[in-house]
Amino acid sequence: MTKPVHVAVVGATGAVGQAMIDTLLRREFPFASLKLLASARSAGTVVEVRGEQLIVEEATPESFEGIDIALFSAGGDVSLRLAKEAVKRGALVIDNTSAFRMDPLVPLVVPEVNPKEIFKNQGIIANPNCSTIQMMVALYPIYREYGIRRIVVSTYQAASGAGQLAMDELRQTASAILVGENPVAKVLPVSKLEYHYPLAFNVLPQIDVFEANGYTKEEMKMVNETHKILNDARIEVTPTAARVPVMYGHSESIYIETDQPFEISDILRLLAHSPGLVLQDDPEHQVYPQALQAAGQFPVFVGRVRKDLFVKNGLSMWVVADNILKGAALNAVQIAEMWILQEGIGS
Amino acid sequence: MTKPVHVAVVGATGAVGQAMIDTLLRREFPFASLKLLASARSAGTVVEVRGEQLIVEEATPESFEGIDIALFSAGGDVSLRLAKEAVKRGALVIDNTSAFRMDPLVPLVVPEVNPKEIFKNQGIIANPNCSTIQMMVALYPIYREYGIRRIVVSTYQAASGAGQLAMDELRQTASAILVGENPVAKVLPVSKLEYHYPLAFNVLPQIDVFEANGYTKEEMKMVNETHKILNDARIEVTPTAARVPVMYGHSESIYIETDQPFEISDILRLLAHSPGLVLQDDPEHQVYPQALQAAGQFPVFVGRVRKDLFVKNGLSMWVVADNILKGAALNAVQIAEMWILQEGIGS
Repeated sequence: MTKPVHVAVVGATGAVGQAMIDTLLRREFPFASLKLLASARSAGTVVEVRGEQLIVEEATPESFEGIDIALFSAGGDVSLRLAKEAVKRGALVIDNTSAFRMDPLVPLVVPEVNPKEIFKNQGIIANPNCSTIQMMVALYPIYREYGIRRIVVSTYQAASGAGQLAMDELRQTASAILVGENPVAKVLPVSKLEYHYPLAFNVLPQIDVFEANGYTKEEMKMVNETHKILNDARIEVTPTAARVPVMYGHSESIYIETDQPFEISDILRLLAHSPGLVLQDDPEHQVYPQALQAAGQFPVFVGRVRKDLFVKNGLSMWVVADNILKGAALNAVQIAEMWILQEGIGS
Repeated sequence: MTKPVHVAVVGATGAVGQAMIDTLLRREFPFASLKLLASARSAGTVVEVRGEQLIVEEATPESFEGIDIALFSAGGDVSLRLAKEAVKRGALVIDNTSAFRMDPLVPLVVPEVNPKEIFKNQGIIANPNCSTIQMMVALYPIYREYGIRRIVVSTYQAASGAGQLAMDELRQTASAILVGENPVAKVLPVSKLEYHYPLAFNVLPQIDVFEANGYTKEEMKMVNETHKILNDARIEVTPTAARVPVMYGHSESIYIETDQPFEISDILRLLAHSPGLVLQDDPEHQVYPQALQAAGQFPVFVGRVRKDLFVKNGLSMWVVADNILKGAALNAVQIAEMWILQEGIGS
């Protein structure tokens, strides 16, 4: 017999919070109760879940009384303020923000890659950054079999990664340009910074703030999180993160060099049979991953897999996933699923 | 005294042909006469040039009688059929198609890189592919000073590179998606192939047809043309070419490894003082190249220049140019300008 599991979603009115609720339902997560939490500003919002009207409550330390699993996606400041309060009250926190990702006491988990880390948690488990997650799902099978010493990755990231306001702005600036008006941007690339640029019919080579070394925070996440997830700081990661006028679905152009030589047919077979991955690789029939097709889907899609023309152990590929699902909500729910299986909780 | 120069534009009604006419005017190219040529289908179209109504004529071998310089951009088949006819009649052909690019008897020229090749022509000079041109302008100063052994490039290419119909389709599919309709694609990624996908709010990792090695023809152009322009087949080029929902302006995420070590300050100084290049690199003030800003501009813009975090001679950068101007029309007109200067023709 298992005990019932009580779940809270913190940031329930945001793009990722909504997707967390949807994903819990789509995957028939066996929750006994679902509590929706958000900032005071969003409290009172009504969200329909399984035909039931749930009222979003303001998240306070006391909100977590009786909660077994709390999925956080309300910004790093909220996680910093409330995650430990939730843990103190007995909840497992699965945090989608960057607040605890590099904390050595907090596991950083992609279930297809390092699931055992889940059980080393001290109350908090961190969800990696969206652009890192899909790269890890695609590369891990190759890493395990051949080793990877080098990654050069350029991203084509969707507006949804910057939240609902960024999606609204993409829609507005696109509409303006289509009728010949001058678009005005106030959100992208980074709402809190001084300058804003339209994303519609444009590409913005800035995601998050710049660090002193000339890389953006988003790019440095891809370096540091890759090292932590694979527990291998020797991998030389060269990231460029750019935002493209897409609503959902991050695309990534990934070049790697493996330690061991490979046959391309073996790589394809490996990718075709790895968890969480769907191989879409048939150039003759123009089959390759596309953001529009990946939107709303759970898997990570990989295609355009090809041997380098010059470098012996070089390999290129194109990797696409729904950044709100596998890049955020789904990855968190998968962690929760593994946790309750192991703990024997859930109805 | 110089003799007057008579210019013809072949493909005058296309996106690049129109830009060739505009560029000749913007740069005050000293033509004595301008003849507009196109397929029989487009003949009769009226184009206004300097307030004068010019009637587009059908391009035939006889069209080139008395022409000194013929700018071709009407498709490879037209170039194959008519370029040599124009040469036979005394014209210098500057061909924007891929018809002659890899012909060992035809110079492949980026004026900022290998201008001397212009004067080795046997009647035809080829304009490189748009994605190669802007990469060459940005990399050549570094190549000359430090040597380059390795290029990993991912492109973010605009719809205009696939012609007017592709731009129309981007506009239509974007409008459809914005009002919640299902977009129908008939042009992109490659009009003559079987499957078509919407570009709006999507990324298409296919430009041109696939070759047997898994790379697209567009990607192989970046490899082969780089080798030919720099006259250096040792450079290991790893290209991924993708189309993004942008009208004008190709963006490129470029990673290189140089032969010689460098200081990043020296690289920045070099790029700031190289012909055809504008350095837009001030992360603190969010200054970096953007497609929307580059559209309609002549230079190649480079920014986000940064040292690799792991690889000693590694360097990343972001390069943007108007693919119709520097990527096609402007490059051709620059070749024509150098030619007439040397030949002493032009009014």
